[in-house]
Amino acid sequence: MNNRPLILISNDDSIDAKGVHHLAECVKEFGDVIIVAPDSPQSGQSSSLSVNKPLRITRHEGYDDAEVYSVSGTPVDCVKLALHAIVPRKPDIMLSGINHGSNSGNAITYSGTMGAAIEAATVGIPSVGFSLLHHSLKADFTWTTPFVKEITRRVLESGLPEGICLNVNIPAKVEPLGMKVCRAARGHWSEEYERYLDPNGKPFFWLTGRFCNDEPDATDTDEYWLAKKYVSVVPASIDQTATKAISSIEKLLK
Amino acid sequence: MNNRPLILISNDDSIDAKGVHHLAECVKEFGDVIIVAPDSPQSGQSSSLSVNKPLRITRHEGYDDAEVYSVSGTPVDCVKLALHAIVPRKPDIMLSGINHGSNSGNAITYSGTMGAAIEAATVGIPSVGFSLLHHSLKADFTWTTPFVKEITRRVLESGLPEGICLNVNIPAKVEPLGMKVCRAARGHWSEEYERYLDPNGKPFFWLTGRFCNDEPDATDTDEYWLAKKYVSVVPASIDQTATKAISSIEKLLK
Repeated sequence: MNNRPLILISNDDSIDAKGVHHLAECVKEFGDVIIVAPDSPQSGQSSSLSVNKPLRITRHEGYDDAEVYSVSGTPVDCVKLALHAIVPRKPDIMLSGINHGSNSGNAITYSGTMGAAIEAATVGIPSVGFSLLHHSLKADFTWTTPFVKEITRRVLESGLPEGICLNVNIPAKVEPLGMKVCRAARGHWSEEYERYLDPNGKPFFWLTGRFCNDEPDATDTDEYWLAKKYVSVVPASIDQTATKAISSIEKLLK
Repeated sequence: MNNRPLILISNDDSIDAKGVHHLAECVKEFGDVIIVAPDSPQSGQSSSLSVNKPLRITRHEGYDDAEVYSVSGTPVDCVKLALHAIVPRKPDIMLSGINHGSNSGNAITYSGTMGAAIEAATVGIPSVGFSLLHHSLKADFTWTTPFVKEITRRVLESGLPEGICLNVNIPAKVEPLGMKVCRAARGHWSEEYERYLDPNGKPFFWLTGRFCNDEPDATDTDEYWLAKKYVSVVPASIDQTATKAISSIEKLLK
């Protein structure tokens, strides 16, 4: 009987992304690794799931360090279907990423990487999403290794509070100075679309824009610490209820 | 100059759904209504957005009570593109729905209806998502009217706390007994996939399952009050940081 921890890994950049295989390489010393990742890029897919289409599972051979599968769906589909039809037992931890690109600030709202982590936490599996602040497909993940190992080891040892997962962002092209637990910076995207005319003169639009930190002076946010070359660790709640606001909303509706 | 409030409406069931037009009908007395809804059903799309495809806007003529547009994308795409390219000024309120089907419990995580509401709140527009506990395309929205009007009127008058939107669920086929501000019930989906074999003998999977309330004895949740035939109003935070967990995660990683 195998007593090694079972580590489920997914991502949103697809099974072909460098980041997901680097993640598996980082953590294989801690347990048996199963990768179940989307068969195509799923950036910006948030917690979306496929309600009206069939899903396929494909086994990929030729990997020494992990069992590797792809699913024809979103990151959430990957986690749900992995738990339903692939893993031999409940995973001890679920890791997502390493994403090619930042998921700091309010990007967690749109992030497929974090969608997968939130899904795992919903069914009681401690989970962590990792993102590198570099979009390139060829991004260098070298400096992520000690932080990914350390966080994974600690979460495997101690678990996480119920209903909480971690959103970890890692500066690119530099050895991080350390790790800071912090909150997500409030922000929004601006200048959001490029407008084009098609050959028939009809307009179409393409998402663009940039993240605007709405609280640039705050010193307790992920944006602040990432700019200072620290790894940011944001505990994220799977419950979106704004408990503190219940009484003020009661008054408002009375 | 027009001083009437501007009301932006979207949904996830598409421009063809009965619920979105019922919503417009309910609130047209309060201001000028612009509907910008997906051109195809987007249930389960959460806060997903289109990062790698062009978006089209189509104007739909023949509506007396609202300007009506569709967008070839997700609910979040609709809100973003409406703000970028359609509305003449910042909307005073954004309303989403009325969804054909429940978004109570942790369904908010996957809900395109709430994805649109959260997007509006992110850029400082007070927003409310409405859902009826009935999936049918022909669902009867009659009993929703007074609650939709009352909540919309109050939010237009008083606004909402920063970073908070409302997730409103309405019992079906019955006159609700009243309205309760409450928290989302913790829950998960079980028995999640049906397995099939295609004509070539290869398996595929289709999402199914049912919501399991993980705290059936709690009396302060939306699930509890909906079962008692009340309208549930859950204040939802756009910030997913679990602030209370920061110190325990600091200890865990030390």
